[in-house]
Amino acid sequence: MNGDQRPVCVFDSGLGGLTVVRELMGAMPSENIVYLGDSARVPYGTKSLETVRRFALEDASFLVRHNPKLLVVACNTASAAAIDILRDNLDTPVVDVIRPGAKAAVDFTDGPVGVIATEATIASGAYVQAIAQYAPEREVCTASCPLLVPIVEEGRSDDDPIVLHVLGDYLGELQRFRPAALILGCTHYPLLAGAISKLMGPETELISSAKAAADQARAMLADLPVQADGAAGTLKCFTTGNPQRFAQLGQRFLGGKIDNVAFVGTDELEIR
Amino acid sequence: MNGDQRPVCVFDSGLGGLTVVRELMGAMPSENIVYLGDSARVPYGTKSLETVRRFALEDASFLVRHNPKLLVVACNTASAAAIDILRDNLDTPVVDVIRPGAKAAVDFTDGPVGVIATEATIASGAYVQAIAQYAPEREVCTASCPLLVPIVEEGRSDDDPIVLHVLGDYLGELQRFRPAALILGCTHYPLLAGAISKLMGPETELISSAKAAADQARAMLADLPVQADGAAGTLKCFTTGNPQRFAQLGQRFLGGKIDNVAFVGTDELEIR
Repeated sequence: MNGDQRPVCVFDSGLGGLTVVRELMGAMPSENIVYLGDSARVPYGTKSLETVRRFALEDASFLVRHNPKLLVVACNTASAAAIDILRDNLDTPVVDVIRPGAKAAVDFTDGPVGVIATEATIASGAYVQAIAQYAPEREVCTASCPLLVPIVEEGRSDDDPIVLHVLGDYLGELQRFRPAALILGCTHYPLLAGAISKLMGPETELISSAKAAADQARAMLADLPVQADGAAGTLKCFTTGNPQRFAQLGQRFLGGKIDNVAFVGTDELEIR
Repeated sequence: MNGDQRPVCVFDSGLGGLTVVRELMGAMPSENIVYLGDSARVPYGTKSLETVRRFALEDASFLVRHNPKLLVVACNTASAAAIDILRDNLDTPVVDVIRPGAKAAVDFTDGPVGVIATEATIASGAYVQAIAQYAPEREVCTASCPLLVPIVEEGRSDDDPIVLHVLGDYLGELQRFRPAALILGCTHYPLLAGAISKLMGPETELISSAKAAADQARAMLADLPVQADGAAGTLKCFTTGNPQRFAQLGQRFLGGKIDNVAFVGTDELEIR
């Protein structure tokens, strides 16, 4: 333990990144976390590469003002579009969700790997490239699932007939491909894990990018070393949308109560 | 004819407002139109009232720089949240899509009226209030349909089984209510009119807010009078997202080719 109480800063396009915060809190309960959810501009997954890059730089620029020891890009779309630009522009070490997810999948199995994610993440090819980096020649099958984010945000659950119908439509090719591991390449998808698992069958292991990213964040803090010590860490959230709505809807993603949420205008995210 | 060639300016959260532009072009082919689609921040319909108000003022503020003779708020959510603020802050006459849609419905029938729209539009109560203004005591039944916008944006068509399944889920109560008129209170919904009509049956007339708004815009220009004359008007589009993507995906909404699209950053929409 090194007593470095600087926060781990995390950003996402909205609420989904709270599934990553949940894993971070489980993996390193002493760390202080500052979270930014860009709810006013959510979703990123259907937007253009340039737009997502601009937003990711603005989000990171705001969080850097909190003096983080580590920045976690909890949004798969932002990780896919902007990770290199973020690393080039920041002095803070950065963890994304794509590479840890890809590595966790190829570490788990020598068999074929599937990936489901947003339209922008799949179109970027980021998962395919990351898997190839850790396991060249690996068979990969991907599917973009644009409706899953709004379906989760609407509050539909695993056993909703519409969830099963939409998933059946998206997963058809992956079911025939029979992957040994399926990467849930979007922060919203762990909330549909039950239904996805039911459709894919017991031969397919679901890999959560959120958990893989939290494991990598913990390893990086231990390596540097810049771990916090002492009592339970704090969670401070910022949203570009409505703080009450964030606190209320965010509970499903965090798996617990959210007390400390402040508003920040998108105009305050400008790069300084 | 009065030879006033100043443009009619139109804004929407993204592409959906092009269904209103289509009706405007049909109703007044000589008018020049300037359109702003805020694709970088789409959708508005799931966001908080304060956020939608801020975005609507910024969108209008940008368009005012083009010296419009009329401003059309093509977005139902922005109309519901921000029409009074816009009228208070602008010298330009403003047409929204809510009141014309409500009036068209009560003019069409003395029977019960249904409304489908986004979560934010329904939560605002704007359609219920507007209907009560024109026809107090009228029976009204509303349903919010959060998934329809992403479904249309994904390119799914009227006969897609998922479209029918989702619509069946949303329209259950309205089917039992048996409205004489059903207001399509979101610019995306006319693209699903075939499926909605099939589920509601021949006793229910679908009312497009887009067409009603275009009729009111034409009447206002004639009253003022500030009509353009001469040859076919032009259409100039701005998007906060990717112009190529806007031109490509926008065709389905406009029902024709889109030639003239420029990028404008959300940071350029600041209120001056």
